[in-house]
Amino acid sequence: MTDVAQLDAADPLAALRERFLLPEDIVYLDGNSLGALPRAVPDAVDRVLRQQWGGDLIASWNRHDWIGLPTRVGERIAALIGAAPGQVLCVDSISVNLFKLLAAALDLRPRRDTILTLRGDFPTDAYIAGGLADWLGPQRCRVHAVEAPALNEHLDERVAVLLLTQVNYRSGERFDMAALTAAAHDAGALVVWDLAHSAGVMPIDLDACAVDFAVGCGYKFLNGGPGAPAFLYVNTRHQGGVRQPLSGWLGHATPFDFAPQYRPAPGVRRFQAGTPPIVSMAALEAALGVFNDVDLNAVRRKSLALGDLFLERLAARPALRELNCITPREHARRGSQLSLRHEQAWGISQALIDAGVIVDFRAPDILRLGFAPLYNCFADVEAALAALERVMVNETYRDPAYDQRPAVT
Amino acid sequence: MTDVAQLDAADPLAALRERFLLPEDIVYLDGNSLGALPRAVPDAVDRVLRQQWGGDLIASWNRHDWIGLPTRVGERIAALIGAAPGQVLCVDSISVNLFKLLAAALDLRPRRDTILTLRGDFPTDAYIAGGLADWLGPQRCRVHAVEAPALNEHLDERVAVLLLTQVNYRSGERFDMAALTAAAHDAGALVVWDLAHSAGVMPIDLDACAVDFAVGCGYKFLNGGPGAPAFLYVNTRHQGGVRQPLSGWLGHATPFDFAPQYRPAPGVRRFQAGTPPIVSMAALEAALGVFNDVDLNAVRRKSLALGDLFLERLAARPALRELNCITPREHARRGSQLSLRHEQAWGISQALIDAGVIVDFRAPDILRLGFAPLYNCFADVEAALAALERVMVNETYRDPAYDQRPAVT
Repeated sequence: MTDVAQLDAADPLAALRERFLLPEDIVYLDGNSLGALPRAVPDAVDRVLRQQWGGDLIASWNRHDWIGLPTRVGERIAALIGAAPGQVLCVDSISVNLFKLLAAALDLRPRRDTILTLRGDFPTDAYIAGGLADWLGPQRCRVHAVEAPALNEHLDERVAVLLLTQVNYRSGERFDMAALTAAAHDAGALVVWDLAHSAGVMPIDLDACAVDFAVGCGYKFLNGGPGAPAFLYVNTRHQGGVRQPLSGWLGHATPFDFAPQYRPAPGVRRFQAGTPPIVSMAALEAALGVFNDVDLNAVRRKSLALGDLFLERLAARPALRELNCITPREHARRGSQLSLRHEQAWGISQALIDAGVIVDFRAPDILRLGFAPLYNCFADVEAALAALERVMVNETYRDPAYDQRPAVT
Repeated sequence: MTDVAQLDAADPLAALRERFLLPEDIVYLDGNSLGALPRAVPDAVDRVLRQQWGGDLIASWNRHDWIGLPTRVGERIAALIGAAPGQVLCVDSISVNLFKLLAAALDLRPRRDTILTLRGDFPTDAYIAGGLADWLGPQRCRVHAVEAPALNEHLDERVAVLLLTQVNYRSGERFDMAALTAAAHDAGALVVWDLAHSAGVMPIDLDACAVDFAVGCGYKFLNGGPGAPAFLYVNTRHQGGVRQPLSGWLGHATPFDFAPQYRPAPGVRRFQAGTPPIVSMAALEAALGVFNDVDLNAVRRKSLALGDLFLERLAARPALRELNCITPREHARRGSQLSLRHEQAWGISQALIDAGVIVDFRAPDILRLGFAPLYNCFADVEAALAALERVMVNETYRDPAYDQRPAVT
């Protein structure tokens, strides 16, 4: 038995791979971008289509509790992110949810005008913050993006809300939720955490960290399918007086009264706006079944072990010396991806994909390898390294076929 | 052959019912709330799940053009609502889209502060307008809701945008898009039309009416499935300088550059915010295939003929005298539903459903019957009337089982 075969044989999570439908002939290291297809999803969706929509039609809103899906799916996610019941809703996209939460946070800090955030976080966070600031006007709101080391010095009395991503999409760096939340609170500010690259792949303790607000993604490590609805978290202590601008009918206290005046629903439900995409949400609900009986501490241990193995063997291969890992090696500061910098990163990513190792690229020079411990194994790491070595030694990344970049990278 | 059988035999659209999977034992008159399941949808969705997501994984964004779905589905809808290419996007929900468009319209009329709308339109429209006004502040925006006859007198120099629904969800009344748009323009205002109850069931001429903005629903007469993504229309003449506050990454000119600064995409694509729910959108795309080779003028003729038959036979049945139709009888002023008022409307709706005739109820006293000419037939009208007569004569609507109202009515 090879050494990686021994690691896989000893892996307590190895059997979870059977919960997914993955092609046999590839190594999939892009679960940080699009999670793999859980085996239970296609049949679950087919039931929603044929039996519920097709058979029970409009009655399904009650009979199959479609109306309860945003809270029901929200509660399943809550259990994965350290949130007691009543605080998480599955709804809309991260972008739309950030708009709601940043507006809500500013409203709770009427004498402060600043959204403080980090340079280099996923662009939609800054774009949405900027869009909100533009519409509220410079008298009311500005966005201030700073480098990480300067964060604390900028946490002043103007900061209404600190917007942070727990794991950076590009570098894979993980930030300290407990410490940064406490620092924000010490400065009188609120926090919004973006969990896009952390939910489902590590334990998260929103309640224990006294986080105010959070958003996250349904289609990465939660495996909910392409563009799966996102989620948001509103800490119970803010639910009494919080307001949000996208006051659509499903956030009304009694939407089916069709009352002329808006009256927000109690609790987190007021963060719903329009009618949710039931088919996509049902796919996510079925996908979350994968996490039944799974210990996220074990997931985190395996995630780090996969990364450690990769880093150790990367260093041992002279041919891979040019690939500079920008992800912190320290466990506490690492998410579940490794990011390698190389000026030919685009060509390398394409050559790896053509060799059956699915990774991705972030402009201008980053190769990302995501480790999804529910379906990746230690043999995947070795296979990825072997392929990477062939690509670098043979310089197959110089193939002119890679000169044209497609719409999505 | 009975008379309704003759009408069905002569119906040029009769064969279209075969494009849907409908239970045999019911009469479905609620396509105005949730359209029936098109036969092509389950297999199309299964391909998206197993072959695209499961098989091609992340590569599907390019290989199966997931990234193009919002514009591709938008263009299919455009052909149904009289919009030349480049103006319609399938995205988010009506609620979220109204927020974007009302904000955009106000921005185009910086010296005007009023969103003028009608009392009694679908609540989310007023709720969203009110939410936007609250966040812009009373110095910048107010919502003024008036009765229809008073609309013209309130179209003054304060009105930035007139927000109207083409067919009222409750009464089924249809408004004159050409005349009201012209009146708004004469007053220097813009218009946003909500097509939720008209798109897919009658010809609509957004371009010919010089409409500024519109939204509509994917899950009613477009049959896209529960909570299917909505659509929005932005007339080409506004696309140069228009701004919207939900400036998420997919509305960026080059989202995969991951640039720090937001730069809106050219044209209507800047109204995208976050990643769209691909599975729900793929269901809608497959559903729209139903409209291939269908003439919306013929759909409209059949819709009115179904309604006319219902009204004629309703009047001829003394037992149904208490049911007062509040929908205008005049063709030009009628959508594709009939609304009957009765103080026992809730019980009547439930008794009809229990008798296999699926209708719905709008508080406090409206029974709605929607006619979907793609799958309803003239025999459905006769069956509904016969069931209604039995319910009224036997007073089965008084069943105590109907005392409890479920979450969704």
